[in-house]
Amino acid sequence: LTFTQQLQHIQQKCNSLLCIGLDPDVAKLPSFLRSAKNPQYEFNRRIIEATYDLVCAYKLNIAFYESAGMKGWEAMERTLELIPKNIITIGDGKRGDIGNSSEHQARAMFNVWKFDAATVNPYMGVDSVEPFIQHPEKGAFILALTSNRGSNDFQYLKLKGKPLFEHVVAKAKMWNVKKNIGLVVGATHPRELKKIRSLVPNMPLLIPGIGAQSGDLEASVRFGCDKKGELAVINVGRAIIFASSGKDFAKAARQIARKYRDEMNGNRDKYFGKKY
Amino acid sequence: LTFTQQLQHIQQKCNSLLCIGLDPDVAKLPSFLRSAKNPQYEFNRRIIEATYDLVCAYKLNIAFYESAGMKGWEAMERTLELIPKNIITIGDGKRGDIGNSSEHQARAMFNVWKFDAATVNPYMGVDSVEPFIQHPEKGAFILALTSNRGSNDFQYLKLKGKPLFEHVVAKAKMWNVKKNIGLVVGATHPRELKKIRSLVPNMPLLIPGIGAQSGDLEASVRFGCDKKGELAVINVGRAIIFASSGKDFAKAARQIARKYRDEMNGNRDKYFGKKY
Repeated sequence: LTFTQQLQHIQQKCNSLLCIGLDPDVAKLPSFLRSAKNPQYEFNRRIIEATYDLVCAYKLNIAFYESAGMKGWEAMERTLELIPKNIITIGDGKRGDIGNSSEHQARAMFNVWKFDAATVNPYMGVDSVEPFIQHPEKGAFILALTSNRGSNDFQYLKLKGKPLFEHVVAKAKMWNVKKNIGLVVGATHPRELKKIRSLVPNMPLLIPGIGAQSGDLEASVRFGCDKKGELAVINVGRAIIFASSGKDFAKAARQIARKYRDEMNGNRDKYFGKKY
Repeated sequence: LTFTQQLQHIQQKCNSLLCIGLDPDVAKLPSFLRSAKNPQYEFNRRIIEATYDLVCAYKLNIAFYESAGMKGWEAMERTLELIPKNIITIGDGKRGDIGNSSEHQARAMFNVWKFDAATVNPYMGVDSVEPFIQHPEKGAFILALTSNRGSNDFQYLKLKGKPLFEHVVAKAKMWNVKKNIGLVVGATHPRELKKIRSLVPNMPLLIPGIGAQSGDLEASVRFGCDKKGELAVINVGRAIIFASSGKDFAKAARQIARKYRDEMNGNRDKYFGKKY
Protein backbone atom coordinates (compact mmCIF):
# COMPACT_ATOMS: atom_id res chain seq x y z
CA LEU A 1 0.00 0.00 0.00
CA THR A 2 1.18 3.51 -0.73
CA PHE A 3 1.41 5.99 2.10
CA THR A 4 -1.71 7.76 0.83
CA GLN A 5 -3.69 4.50 0.83
CA GLN A 6 -2.51 3.63 4.32
CA LEU A 7 -3.67 7.01 5.57
CA GLN A 8 -7.08 6.51 3.92
CA HIS A 9 -7.54 3.13 5.54
CA ILE A 10 -6.50 4.37 8.95
CA GLN A 11 -8.79 7.39 8.80
CA GLN A 12 -11.72 5.18 7.78
CA LYS A 13 -11.03 2.67 10.51
CA CYS A 14 -10.49 5.12 13.36
CA ASN A 15 -13.04 7.61 12.09
CA SER A 16 -10.82 10.58 12.84
CA LEU A 17 -8.88 13.32 11.09
CA LEU A 18 -7.16 14.32 14.32
CA CYS A 19 -3.39 14.28 14.63
CA ILE A 20 -1.92 15.09 18.03
CA GLY A 21 1.37 16.98 18.18
CA LEU A 22 3.57 15.25 20.76
CA ASP A 23 5.82 18.22 21.44
CA PRO A 24 6.80 17.81 25.10
CA ASP A 25 8.44 21.15 25.80
CA VAL A 26 10.30 20.35 29.03
CA ALA A 27 9.52 23.73 30.57
CA LYS A 28 5.79 23.14 30.17
CA LEU A 29 5.50 19.63 31.56
CA PRO A 30 3.36 19.14 34.68
CA SER A 31 5.69 19.75 37.60
CA PHE A 32 4.89 16.42 39.29
CA LEU A 33 6.50 14.64 36.31
CA ARG A 34 9.87 16.37 36.73
CA SER A 35 11.06 13.69 39.12
CA ALA A 36 10.36 10.91 36.60
CA LYS A 37 13.41 9.19 35.13
CA ASN A 38 12.53 10.57 31.70
CA PRO A 39 9.81 13.21 32.08
CA GLN A 40 9.24 13.67 28.33
CA TYR A 41 8.71 9.98 27.80
CA GLU A 42 6.48 9.66 30.85
CA PHE A 43 4.42 12.60 29.62
CA ASN A 44 4.04 11.16 26.12
CA ARG A 45 3.21 7.72 27.44
CA ARG A 46 0.29 9.03 29.43
CA ILE A 47 -0.95 11.24 26.58
CA ILE A 48 -0.83 8.31 24.16
CA GLU A 49 -2.58 5.92 26.52
CA ALA A 50 -5.34 8.50 26.97
CA THR A 51 -5.83 9.40 23.31
CA TYR A 52 -4.76 6.61 20.94
CA ASP A 53 -8.33 5.63 20.06
CA LEU A 54 -9.15 9.20 19.01
CA VAL A 55 -6.43 9.92 16.43
CA CYS A 56 -5.26 8.90 12.97
CA ALA A 57 -1.73 10.17 13.58
CA TYR A 58 0.80 11.50 16.07
CA LYS A 59 3.24 14.17 14.92
CA LEU A 60 6.52 14.53 16.82
CA ASN A 61 8.37 17.79 16.23
CA ILE A 62 12.04 16.82 16.48
CA ALA A 63 12.96 20.24 17.90
CA PHE A 64 11.46 19.41 21.30
CA TYR A 65 13.55 16.27 21.59
CA GLU A 66 16.88 17.59 20.30
CA SER A 67 16.68 20.55 22.68
CA ALA A 68 16.55 18.07 25.60
CA GLY A 69 19.85 16.39 24.74
CA MET A 70 20.44 12.62 24.97
CA LYS A 71 17.40 12.16 27.21
CA GLY A 72 15.31 13.76 24.50
CA TRP A 73 16.40 11.21 21.90
CA GLU A 74 15.71 8.42 24.32
CA ALA A 75 12.23 9.85 24.98
CA MET A 76 11.55 10.09 21.25
CA GLU A 77 12.68 6.57 20.44
CA ARG A 78 10.77 5.02 23.32
CA THR A 79 7.67 7.06 22.45
CA LEU A 80 7.75 5.73 18.89
CA GLU A 81 7.97 2.15 20.15
CA LEU A 82 4.84 2.78 22.20
CA ILE A 83 2.55 4.11 19.47
CA PRO A 84 0.21 1.40 18.13
CA LYS A 85 1.17 0.25 14.61
CA ASN A 86 -2.18 1.24 13.14
CA ILE A 87 -1.54 4.92 13.80
CA ILE A 88 0.56 7.08 11.44
CA THR A 89 3.68 8.63 12.98
CA ILE A 90 5.01 11.86 11.45
CA GLY A 91 8.58 13.02 12.07
CA ASP A 92 8.27 16.78 11.89
CA GLY A 93 11.80 17.99 11.23
CA LYS A 94 11.38 20.19 8.13
CA ARG A 95 14.32 18.37 6.58
CA GLY A 96 15.94 18.79 3.14
CA ASP A 97 19.57 19.12 2.02
CA ILE A 98 21.77 18.33 -0.98
CA GLY A 99 21.02 14.79 -2.18
CA ASN A 100 23.87 13.06 -0.38
CA SER A 101 22.96 14.60 2.98
CA SER A 102 19.20 14.30 2.46
CA GLU A 103 19.69 10.55 2.06
CA HIS A 104 21.08 10.44 5.57
CA GLN A 105 18.25 12.59 6.89
CA ALA A 106 15.73 10.21 5.33
CA ARG A 107 17.57 7.23 6.77
CA ALA A 108 17.34 8.78 10.23
CA MET A 109 13.60 9.43 9.82
CA PHE A 110 12.59 6.10 8.30
CA ASN A 111 15.24 3.59 9.38
CA VAL A 112 16.63 4.81 12.68
CA TRP A 113 13.49 6.36 14.18
CA LYS A 114 11.04 4.44 11.95
CA PHE A 115 8.56 7.25 11.34
CA ASP A 116 5.91 6.56 8.71
CA ALA A 117 6.25 10.05 7.25
CA ALA A 118 8.46 13.13 7.49
CA THR A 119 8.01 16.83 6.83
CA VAL A 120 10.32 18.28 4.18
CA ASN A 121 11.26 21.87 3.32
CA PRO A 122 11.16 22.39 -0.46
CA TYR A 123 13.62 25.31 -0.77
CA MET A 124 16.52 23.15 -1.96
CA GLY A 125 14.47 21.43 -4.67
CA VAL A 126 14.20 18.02 -6.23
CA ASP A 127 17.32 16.22 -4.99
CA SER A 128 16.59 17.36 -1.45
CA VAL A 129 13.13 15.74 -1.60
CA GLU A 130 13.94 12.54 -3.55
CA PRO A 131 15.40 10.49 -0.69
CA PHE A 132 12.16 10.99 1.25
CA ILE A 133 9.92 9.61 -1.52
CA GLN A 134 11.82 6.48 -2.54
CA HIS A 135 9.59 4.06 -0.67
CA PRO A 136 5.88 4.18 -1.60
CA GLU A 137 4.86 3.16 1.92
CA LYS A 138 6.75 6.05 3.54
CA GLY A 139 5.31 9.56 3.20
CA ALA A 140 6.76 13.05 2.78
CA PHE A 141 4.75 16.14 3.65
CA ILE A 142 6.29 19.04 1.76
CA LEU A 143 5.91 22.53 3.25
CA ALA A 144 3.70 24.57 0.95
CA LEU A 145 2.08 27.33 3.01
CA THR A 146 3.03 27.29 6.67
CA SER A 147 0.88 28.43 9.58
CA ASN A 148 3.24 31.05 11.00
CA ARG A 149 3.48 34.81 10.35
CA GLY A 150 6.83 34.33 8.57
CA SER A 151 4.91 32.58 5.80
CA ASN A 152 4.35 36.10 4.46
CA ASP A 153 8.04 36.70 3.80
CA PHE A 154 8.60 34.40 0.83
CA GLN A 155 5.74 31.95 0.33
CA TYR A 156 3.36 34.58 -1.06
CA LEU A 157 5.88 36.22 -3.38
CA LYS A 158 4.42 36.18 -6.86
CA LEU A 159 6.88 34.55 -9.18
CA LYS A 160 5.77 34.44 -12.82
CA GLY A 161 2.32 35.54 -11.67
CA LYS A 162 1.87 32.70 -9.16
CA PRO A 163 2.74 32.74 -5.46
CA LEU A 164 5.76 30.65 -4.54
CA PHE A 165 3.65 28.18 -2.57
CA GLU A 166 1.70 27.32 -5.73
CA HIS A 167 4.96 26.59 -7.55
CA VAL A 168 5.79 24.23 -4.70
CA VAL A 169 2.38 22.58 -5.00
CA ALA A 170 2.86 22.10 -8.75
CA LYS A 171 6.28 20.49 -8.34
CA ALA A 172 5.08 18.28 -5.50
CA LYS A 173 2.24 17.06 -7.69
CA MET A 174 4.69 16.30 -10.47
CA TRP A 175 7.03 14.43 -8.10
CA ASN A 176 4.18 12.34 -6.65
CA VAL A 177 4.62 9.30 -8.91
CA LYS A 178 4.70 6.88 -5.99
CA LYS A 179 1.61 8.37 -4.34
CA ASN A 180 3.37 9.11 -1.10
CA ILE A 181 3.64 12.90 -1.11
CA GLY A 182 1.47 15.22 0.94
CA LEU A 183 1.58 18.97 1.59
CA VAL A 184 1.71 21.09 4.72
CA VAL A 185 -0.86 23.91 4.65
CA GLY A 186 -1.57 25.99 7.73
CA ALA A 187 -5.11 26.19 9.11
CA THR A 188 -4.44 29.92 9.40
CA HIS A 189 -4.85 30.29 5.60
CA PRO A 190 -8.36 28.93 4.79
CA ARG A 191 -8.71 30.61 1.40
CA GLU A 192 -5.39 29.31 0.16
CA LEU A 193 -6.18 25.88 1.61
CA LYS A 194 -9.25 25.78 -0.61
CA LYS A 195 -7.16 26.73 -3.63
CA ILE A 196 -4.49 24.13 -2.85
CA ARG A 197 -7.06 21.35 -2.38
CA SER A 198 -8.48 22.22 -5.80
CA LEU A 199 -4.98 21.83 -7.29
CA VAL A 200 -4.30 18.46 -5.62
CA PRO A 201 -7.63 16.68 -5.18
CA ASN A 202 -6.03 13.39 -4.10
CA MET A 203 -3.04 14.27 -1.96
CA PRO A 204 -2.90 14.15 1.84
CA LEU A 205 -2.78 17.57 3.48
CA LEU A 206 -1.17 18.01 6.88
CA ILE A 207 -2.87 20.99 8.48
CA PRO A 208 -1.23 22.53 11.56
CA GLY A 209 -2.25 25.71 13.32
CA ILE A 210 -5.42 24.68 15.20
CA GLY A 211 -5.48 25.59 18.89
CA ALA A 212 -2.60 27.75 20.14
CA GLN A 213 -2.19 29.30 16.67
CA SER A 214 -5.94 30.03 16.24
CA GLY A 215 -6.41 28.39 12.85
CA ASP A 216 -9.87 27.82 11.40
CA LEU A 217 -11.12 24.31 12.21
CA GLU A 218 -14.29 24.38 10.14
CA ALA A 219 -12.43 25.57 7.05
CA SER A 220 -9.69 23.01 7.66
CA VAL A 221 -12.23 20.21 7.37
CA ARG A 222 -14.33 21.77 4.64
CA PHE A 223 -11.46 22.76 2.36
CA GLY A 224 -8.74 20.40 3.57
CA CYS A 225 -10.54 17.11 2.91
CA ASP A 226 -10.79 15.37 -0.43
CA LYS A 227 -14.20 14.76 -1.99
CA LYS A 228 -14.89 11.85 0.32
CA GLY A 229 -14.20 13.88 3.45
CA GLU A 230 -10.80 12.28 3.98
CA LEU A 231 -7.04 12.87 3.60
CA ALA A 232 -6.90 15.97 5.77
CA VAL A 233 -4.62 15.33 8.75
CA ILE A 234 -5.44 18.09 11.19
CA ASN A 235 -2.83 18.64 13.86
CA VAL A 236 -3.53 20.00 17.33
CA GLY A 237 -0.60 20.22 19.69
CA ARG A 238 -0.41 22.51 22.71
CA ALA A 239 -4.19 22.94 23.07
CA ILE A 240 -4.48 19.22 23.79
CA ILE A 241 -1.27 18.11 25.47
CA PHE A 242 -1.08 21.14 27.75
CA ALA A 243 -4.84 21.37 28.42
CA SER A 244 -4.05 20.95 32.11
CA SER A 245 -0.77 21.24 33.95
CA GLY A 246 -1.99 19.21 36.90
CA LYS A 247 -2.10 15.53 37.74
CA ASP A 248 -5.18 15.23 35.52
CA PHE A 249 -3.33 16.34 32.36
CA ALA A 250 -3.90 13.09 30.45
CA LYS A 251 -7.58 13.03 31.26
CA ALA A 252 -7.88 16.69 30.26
CA ALA A 253 -6.00 15.93 27.03
CA ARG A 254 -8.47 13.16 26.24
CA GLN A 255 -11.42 15.46 26.81
CA ILE A 256 -10.08 18.15 24.52
CA ALA A 257 -8.93 15.64 21.91
CA ARG A 258 -12.39 14.11 21.82
CA LYS A 259 -13.93 17.55 21.47
CA TYR A 260 -11.68 18.31 18.49
CA ARG A 261 -12.30 14.95 16.86
CA ASP A 262 -16.05 15.32 17.24
CA GLU A 263 -16.00 18.89 15.96
CA MET A 264 -14.04 17.73 12.90
CA ASN A 265 -16.49 14.88 12.35
CA GLY A 266 -19.42 17.25 12.79
CA ASN A 267 -18.04 19.32 9.96
CA ARG A 268 -17.55 16.21 7.88
CA ASP A 269 -21.24 15.42 8.39
CA LYS A 270 -22.09 18.97 7.38
CA TYR A 271 -19.95 19.25 4.26
CA PHE A 272 -19.55 15.68 3.04
CA GLY A 273 -22.95 14.32 3.96
CA LYS A 274 -21.89 11.11 5.67
CA LYS A 275 -22.49 10.10 9.24
CA TYR A 276 -19.14 10.11 10.97
CA LEU B 1 32.30 40.51 19.72
CA THR B 2 29.69 39.78 17.09
CA PHE B 3 29.85 36.53 15.18
CA THR B 4 31.08 38.40 12.11
CA GLN B 5 33.92 40.02 14.08
CA GLN B 6 34.91 36.70 15.61
CA LEU B 7 35.12 35.16 12.17
CA GLN B 8 37.29 38.04 10.94
CA HIS B 9 39.71 37.68 13.82
CA ILE B 10 39.96 33.94 13.42
CA GLN B 11 40.57 34.16 9.68
CA GLN B 12 43.29 36.76 10.23
CA LYS B 13 44.95 34.74 12.94
CA CYS B 14 44.90 31.35 11.18
CA ASN B 15 45.40 32.83 7.74
CA SER B 16 42.84 30.53 6.16
CA LEU B 17 39.42 30.60 4.52
CA LEU B 18 39.15 26.83 4.64
CA CYS B 19 36.29 25.11 6.44
CA ILE B 20 36.37 21.32 6.61
CA GLY B 21 33.08 19.42 6.46
CA LEU B 22 33.17 16.76 9.18
CA ASP B 23 30.56 14.51 7.63
CA PRO B 24 31.61 11.01 8.69
CA ASP B 25 29.34 8.87 6.52
CA VAL B 26 29.66 5.52 8.30
CA ALA B 27 29.69 3.55 5.04
CA LYS B 28 32.73 5.50 3.82
CA LEU B 29 34.94 5.31 6.88
CA PRO B 30 38.29 3.50 6.53
CA SER B 31 37.54 -0.14 7.26
CA PHE B 32 40.22 -0.44 9.93
CA LEU B 33 38.25 2.04 12.06
CA ARG B 34 35.09 -0.08 12.11
CA SER B 35 36.25 -1.95 15.18
CA ALA B 36 36.71 1.28 17.16
CA LYS B 37 34.27 1.87 19.99
CA ASN B 38 32.84 4.87 18.15
CA PRO B 39 34.18 4.88 14.57
CA GLN B 40 32.73 8.29 13.67
CA TYR B 41 34.32 9.94 16.66
CA GLU B 42 37.63 8.19 16.11
CA PHE B 43 37.60 9.29 12.48
CA ASN B 44 36.82 12.92 13.36
CA ARG B 45 39.42 12.97 16.11
CA ARG B 46 42.18 11.99 13.73
CA ILE B 47 41.01 14.41 11.02
CA ILE B 48 40.91 17.28 13.51
CA GLU B 49 44.34 16.49 14.97
CA ALA B 50 45.75 16.47 11.44
CA THR B 51 44.11 19.67 10.19
CA TYR B 52 43.22 22.08 13.00
CA ASP B 53 46.05 24.49 12.16
CA LEU B 54 44.85 24.80 8.54
CA VAL B 55 41.22 25.84 9.02
CA CYS B 56 39.08 28.71 10.23
CA ALA B 57 36.06 26.48 10.76
CA TYR B 58 34.65 22.97 10.92
CA LYS B 59 31.16 22.34 9.61
CA LEU B 60 29.27 19.31 10.91
CA ASN B 61 26.28 18.25 8.85
CA ILE B 62 23.84 16.89 11.42
CA ALA B 63 22.43 14.37 8.90
CA PHE B 64 25.51 12.15 9.16
CA TYR B 65 25.18 11.92 12.92
CA GLU B 66 21.43 11.44 13.22
CA SER B 67 21.55 8.61 10.66
CA ALA B 68 23.95 6.76 12.98
CA GLY B 69 21.56 6.68 15.93
CA MET B 70 22.63 7.24 19.54
CA LYS B 71 26.27 6.55 18.70
CA GLY B 72 26.09 9.33 16.15
CA TRP B 73 24.98 11.90 18.73
CA GLU B 74 27.72 10.75 21.05
CA ALA B 75 30.26 11.12 18.22
CA MET B 76 29.00 14.62 17.45
CA GLU B 77 29.06 15.83 21.04
CA ARG B 78 32.51 14.42 21.70
CA THR B 79 33.81 15.85 18.42
CA LEU B 80 32.61 19.31 19.40
CA GLU B 81 34.40 19.06 22.75
CA LEU B 82 37.60 18.29 20.87
CA ILE B 83 37.66 21.23 18.47
CA PRO B 84 39.95 24.03 19.72
CA LYS B 85 38.01 27.06 20.96
CA ASN B 86 39.64 29.41 18.45
CA ILE B 87 38.01 27.61 15.51
CA ILE B 88 34.42 28.31 14.43
CA THR B 89 32.03 25.35 14.59
CA ILE B 90 29.04 25.34 12.26
CA GLY B 91 26.02 23.12 12.90
CA ASP B 92 24.74 22.41 9.42
CA GLY B 93 21.16 21.30 9.93
CA LYS B 94 19.21 23.63 7.60
CA ARG B 95 16.83 24.34 10.46
CA GLY B 96 13.81 26.67 10.61
CA ASP B 97 10.25 26.17 11.94
CA ILE B 98 7.41 28.20 13.46
CA GLY B 99 8.83 30.47 16.17
CA ASN B 100 8.03 28.26 19.13
CA SER B 101 9.72 25.21 17.56
CA SER B 102 12.60 27.20 16.06
CA GLU B 103 13.46 28.36 19.58
CA HIS B 104 14.02 24.75 20.54
CA GLN B 105 16.07 24.10 17.42
CA ALA B 106 18.27 27.07 18.26
CA ARG B 107 18.59 25.88 21.83
CA ALA B 108 19.80 22.50 20.57
CA MET B 109 22.35 24.11 18.26
CA PHE B 110 23.72 26.73 20.63
CA ASN B 111 23.07 25.42 24.14
CA VAL B 112 23.01 21.64 23.92
CA TRP B 113 25.61 21.11 21.19
CA LYS B 114 27.28 24.53 21.62
CA PHE B 115 27.90 25.29 17.96
CA ASP B 116 29.08 28.82 17.17
CA ALA B 117 26.80 29.06 14.14
CA ALA B 118 23.96 27.18 12.46
CA THR B 119 22.60 26.98 8.93
CA VAL B 120 18.97 28.06 8.53
CA ASN B 121 16.45 27.51 5.74
CA PRO B 122 14.58 30.77 4.98
CA TYR B 123 11.36 29.29 3.52
CA MET B 124 9.32 29.81 6.72
CA GLY B 125 10.36 33.45 7.10
CA VAL B 126 11.17 35.83 9.89
CA ASP B 127 9.94 34.02 13.01
CA SER B 128 11.73 30.85 11.90
CA VAL B 129 15.03 32.76 11.73
CA GLU B 130 14.71 35.00 14.79
CA PRO B 131 15.65 32.46 17.48
CA PHE B 132 18.94 31.85 15.65
CA ILE B 133 19.98 35.53 15.67
CA GLN B 134 19.19 36.51 19.24
CA HIS B 135 22.77 36.35 20.48
CA PRO B 136 25.26 38.57 18.61
CA GLU B 137 28.09 36.12 19.26
CA LYS B 138 26.21 33.20 17.68
CA GLY B 139 25.87 33.12 13.89
CA ALA B 140 23.18 32.04 11.44
CA PHE B 141 24.00 31.21 7.82
CA ILE B 142 20.78 31.54 5.84
CA LEU B 143 20.43 29.44 2.69
CA ALA B 144 20.36 31.79 -0.29
CA LEU B 145 21.55 29.87 -3.36
CA THR B 146 22.48 26.27 -2.63
CA SER B 147 25.11 24.22 -4.45
CA ASN B 148 22.86 21.35 -5.61
CA ARG B 149 20.94 20.83 -8.86
CA GLY B 150 17.64 21.26 -7.00
CA SER B 151 18.57 24.91 -6.52
CA ASN B 152 17.04 25.39 -9.98
CA ASP B 153 13.55 24.41 -8.86
CA PHE B 154 12.61 27.44 -6.78
CA GLN B 155 15.61 29.63 -5.95
CA TYR B 156 15.84 31.11 -9.47
CA LEU B 157 12.12 31.83 -9.89
CA LYS B 158 11.76 35.51 -10.68
CA LEU B 159 9.61 38.12 -8.98
CA LYS B 160 9.74 41.68 -10.31
CA GLY B 161 12.81 40.75 -12.30
CA LYS B 162 14.63 39.46 -9.23
CA PRO B 163 15.17 35.76 -8.47
CA LEU B 164 13.87 34.36 -5.16
CA PHE B 165 17.40 33.99 -3.78
CA GLU B 166 17.91 37.76 -4.09
CA HIS B 167 14.73 38.35 -2.12
CA VAL B 168 16.20 36.10 0.56
CA VAL B 169 19.44 38.09 0.47
CA ALA B 170 17.53 41.37 0.86
CA LYS B 171 15.59 40.10 3.89
CA ALA B 172 18.70 38.62 5.49
CA LYS B 173 20.44 41.97 5.12
CA MET B 174 17.49 43.70 6.75
CA TRP B 175 17.42 41.20 9.63
CA ASN B 176 21.17 41.56 10.27
CA VAL B 177 20.94 44.19 13.01
CA LYS B 178 23.14 42.21 15.39
CA LYS B 179 25.82 41.55 12.75
CA ASN B 180 25.61 37.80 13.11
CA ILE B 181 23.94 36.71 9.87
CA GLY B 182 25.73 35.11 6.96
CA LEU B 183 24.51 33.51 3.73
CA VAL B 184 25.04 30.14 2.11
CA VAL B 185 25.97 30.43 -1.56
CA GLY B 186 27.17 27.43 -3.55
CA ALA B 187 30.57 27.51 -5.26
CA THR B 188 28.74 26.02 -8.23
CA HIS B 189 27.17 29.43 -9.00
CA PRO B 190 30.14 31.85 -9.45
CA ARG B 191 28.22 34.53 -11.35
CA GLU B 192 25.48 34.70 -8.73
CA LEU B 193 28.08 34.63 -5.97
CA LYS B 194 29.58 37.81 -7.42
CA LYS B 195 26.15 39.43 -7.49
CA ILE B 196 25.36 38.41 -3.93
CA ARG B 197 28.70 39.71 -2.61
CA SER B 198 27.94 43.05 -4.25
CA LEU B 199 24.60 43.13 -2.40
CA VAL B 200 26.09 42.28 1.01
CA PRO B 201 29.65 43.63 1.09
CA ASN B 202 30.12 42.93 4.80
CA MET B 203 28.37 39.66 5.54
CA PRO B 204 30.05 36.28 5.96
CA LEU B 205 29.40 33.87 3.08
CA LEU B 206 29.52 30.13 3.67
CA ILE B 207 30.46 28.58 0.34
CA PRO B 208 29.97 24.82 -0.06
CA GLY B 209 30.39 22.82 -3.25
CA ILE B 210 34.20 22.64 -3.68
CA GLY B 211 35.59 19.17 -4.26
CA ALA B 212 33.05 16.38 -4.77
CA GLN B 213 30.52 18.87 -6.17
CA SER B 214 33.04 20.51 -8.56
CA GLY B 215 32.47 24.10 -7.55
CA ASP B 216 34.81 26.88 -8.74
CA LEU B 217 37.52 27.56 -6.16
CA GLU B 218 39.10 30.60 -7.82
CA ALA B 219 35.71 32.30 -8.22
CA SER B 220 34.78 31.39 -4.65
CA VAL B 221 37.76 33.35 -3.36
CA ARG B 222 37.58 36.17 -5.88
CA PHE B 223 33.85 36.83 -5.58
CA GLY B 224 33.14 35.31 -2.16
CA CYS B 225 35.54 37.47 -0.12
CA ASP B 226 34.85 40.98 1.10
CA LYS B 227 37.10 43.84 -0.03
CA LYS B 228 39.84 42.83 2.37
CA GLY B 229 39.94 39.26 1.10
CA GLU B 230 38.07 37.89 4.11
CA LEU B 231 34.66 36.64 5.31
CA ALA B 232 34.37 33.84 2.75
CA VAL B 233 34.15 30.50 4.58
CA ILE B 234 34.88 27.93 1.90
CA ASN B 235 33.81 24.43 2.79
CA VAL B 236 35.45 21.27 1.49
CA GLY B 237 34.11 17.98 2.78
CA ARG B 238 34.49 14.64 1.06
CA ALA B 239 37.52 15.65 -1.05
CA ILE B 240 39.49 16.12 2.15
CA ILE B 241 38.12 13.69 4.71
CA PHE B 242 37.87 10.80 2.26
CA ALA B 243 41.10 11.59 0.39
CA SER B 244 42.33 8.14 1.35
CA SER B 245 40.44 5.16 2.72
CA GLY B 246 43.58 3.57 4.15
CA LYS B 247 45.45 3.84 7.42
CA ASP B 248 47.00 7.08 6.12
CA PHE B 249 43.63 8.86 5.80
CA ALA B 250 44.45 11.62 8.28
CA LYS B 251 47.80 12.33 6.67
CA ALA B 252 46.17 12.37 3.23
CA ALA B 253 43.46 14.71 4.56
CA ARG B 254 46.15 17.07 5.82
CA GLN B 255 47.89 17.12 2.47
CA ILE B 256 44.72 17.91 0.55
CA ALA B 257 43.57 20.44 3.14
CA ARG B 258 46.89 22.25 2.90
CA LYS B 259 46.64 22.25 -0.89
CA TYR B 260 43.16 23.81 -0.70
CA ARG B 261 44.19 26.38 1.89
CA ASP B 262 47.22 27.38 -0.14
CA GLU B 263 45.25 27.57 -3.37
CA MET B 264 42.71 29.81 -1.64
CA ASN B 265 45.49 32.00 -0.28
CA GLY B 266 47.15 32.11 -3.70
CA ASN B 267 43.93 33.53 -5.06
CA ARG B 268 43.76 36.01 -2.22
CA ASP B 269 47.28 37.17 -3.19
CA LYS B 270 46.13 37.47 -6.79
CA TYR B 271 42.88 39.34 -6.27
CA PHE B 272 43.36 41.21 -3.00
CA GLY B 273 47.02 42.07 -3.30
CA LYS B 274 48.19 40.99 0.13
CA LYS B 275 50.69 38.32 0.98
CA TYR B 276 48.80 35.48 2.62
